Amino acid sequence: MNRRFLILAEGNFGPLSSKTANACIRYCGHEVIAVLDSTQAGKTAHDVLGFGGAIPVIASYHEAPPLKPHALLIGIAPAGGQFPASWRTIVCDALRDGLDVWSGLHTMLGDDREFASLAHASGATIRDLRRAPADLDIATGLVRESRATVVLTVGTDCNIGKMTTQLQVRDAVRALGCRVNFAATGQTGILIEGRGIGVDAVIADFIAGAAERLTFEAAHDADIVLVEGQGSLMHPAYSGVTLGLMHGALPHAMILCAQPTRTTIDRYPWVPIPPLRDVVQLYEAAMRHVRPSPVIALALNTYDLSEHDAMMAIERAQSETGLPTTDPVRFEASIIARAIEALHLRQ
Amino acid sequence: MNRRFLILAEGNFGPLSSKTANACIRYCGHEVIAVLDSTQAGKTAHDVLGFGGAIPVIASYHEAPPLKPHALLIGIAPAGGQFPASWRTIVCDALRDGLDVWSGLHTMLGDDREFASLAHASGATIRDLRRAPADLDIATGLVRESRATVVLTVGTDCNIGKMTTQLQVRDAVRALGCRVNFAATGQTGILIEGRGIGVDAVIADFIAGAAERLTFEAAHDADIVLVEGQGSLMHPAYSGVTLGLMHGALPHAMILCAQPTRTTIDRYPWVPIPPLRDVVQLYEAAMRHVRPSPVIALALNTYDLSEHDAMMAIERAQSETGLPTTDPVRFEASIIARAIEALHLRQ
Repeated sequence: MNRRFLILAEGNFGPLSSKTANACIRYCGHEVIAVLDSTQAGKTAHDVLGFGGAIPVIASYHEAPPLKPHALLIGIAPAGGQFPASWRTIVCDALRDGLDVWSGLHTMLGDDREFASLAHASGATIRDLRRAPADLDIATGLVRESRATVVLTVGTDCNIGKMTTQLQVRDAVRALGCRVNFAATGQTGILIEGRGIGVDAVIADFIAGAAERLTFEAAHDADIVLVEGQGSLMHPAYSGVTLGLMHGALPHAMILCAQPTRTTIDRYPWVPIPPLRDVVQLYEAAMRHVRPSPVIALALNTYDLSEHDAMMAIERAQSETGLPTTDPVRFEASIIARAIEALHLRQ
Repeated sequence: MNRRFLILAEGNFGPLSSKTANACIRYCGHEVIAVLDSTQAGKTAHDVLGFGGAIPVIASYHEAPPLKPHALLIGIAPAGGQFPASWRTIVCDALRDGLDVWSGLHTMLGDDREFASLAHASGATIRDLRRAPADLDIATGLVRESRATVVLTVGTDCNIGKMTTQLQVRDAVRALGCRVNFAATGQTGILIEGRGIGVDAVIADFIAGAAERLTFEAAHDADIVLVEGQGSLMHPAYSGVTLGLMHGALPHAMILCAQPTRTTIDRYPWVPIPPLRDVVQLYEAAMRHVRPSPVIALALNTYDLSEHDAMMAIERAQSETGLPTTDPVRFEASIIARAIEALHLRQ
């Protein structure tokens, strides 16, 4: 697979605004040639994100990056997933040059006539990561036949660490000697893992059906399946995806992701985030009648706290809920991995 | 609009198996010419359903119905919504004769090449009731700007009376002198109402966005909006649609629909239906953080109980939950209408 990426994040490259770009840099950094954002040109990924090393930020598509890329990656995932009209020229130029285009937007770039015809002419491929398989169906409860232990991340909000937690935990679980798979449910996870289904982009009736299929497939050669969570049960726009994913994946346990400094749902300030204890209850109640599933650990996203404050926040959350708590990016993910291992041994 | 229907329900016409047909007969019976089901030919709708009067059941498309229909209505809504392959010939014949075809299936009949070309040739229209508007977006909380009182039906399971309850309650609320609108969210409701969005057929990220749009539109010229519920929070396949609809419609109150004789989720016998008190709690907990919304009444579906047993079941449910309870089809819907009126006066 051609995976030397130029990431397009024009006007949006930043710690919170370019989710797809950032995850690609964190987990596939060796495959990234440069990031295109004229508003940050001259900096490195590390300057902008605090990680990503010397990957350069360039000002325009025509500025020669150090190596010729194989593919242009659309590096943002805006709410609603539409394609920014101002990026059309850049995508056209890339396709003309024979670069593949990878996109996680709801707008299927492969269905765009101009893009499709340019790709056809140059032999480039347009990979719409969110394109749903054509043969999805409703959920059947299939996952109950699998012997793997399934763990799902859930959260107080979107964009809070549900994918990142699973990727960090995967390494830690593997270090304990377990066969573990990551089941990707969003465009960025699919980009990293190379497979998965974007459950937020399927027909609404098939959310759980998609979730059970990808969980079951990931369980094939694993003792433990770590399913990437989506959204939040309290999110006014995305809660349906969250619950459908929960009931399709049928996790044996959940890991709750939260950001201590976030007090309301992002962009929905009229929805306050309740105390973690209440959030734990809400998630467990939503699973109880379908497959009882406890929250067994908390993953806090403390990127915007000092180390001291982060440790205080972890201690507070742990004493509020009685659950093992960590920031799996900043500190140890092994606390969560051990909770999962203990659960697996009890199954 | 041409609405003299021949209903296609081959092999499936029955009280529980032909949901779309049955609702059309109940609410638009004067627009139904005949039902096509060779396995029940010679009977009337009343013989098969217990309502629907003398509408004849005929054996084949070519058996002359009493009047020439304007449209063929696909009368079933199977799980997953696929098109039964054996019905193709009938649909083709109808399109050749210039009949419109109305369908609530997930499979978009208008996208079928053969159907589309026959329709084009004869001037017939294919109306896919579940086709989502092209310009949907994520939810914003728009409904909070409306002054109408919004009431949503929720349920212990699918196919338990959430649409029927709202239609019965609508008449009863209107009789109290309120301006009331029904917001249709499923193919059958859309068929009856002539407008609406099938929220189970939209892209998963847009469930709540679709729900808020149709609720807001229905609120335009009404004091009270009755939103048709979908699925169940405990349903392993459809719960995502249910929660997305709840958080998009942002109801001020909910009516819980249940069937006393049903003890497990239909087709998912591994999911027991908990006591009604627990179900009420589950729904109220799921709304609490977004817009607090009490369950204010119960609507029981007692079609499979004797009148005596139905009344006993209503009494039991009422004493278990402390909520006004009725079977709005069999007995009075006014009990629920008065609970809604009281809520509206308090807003």
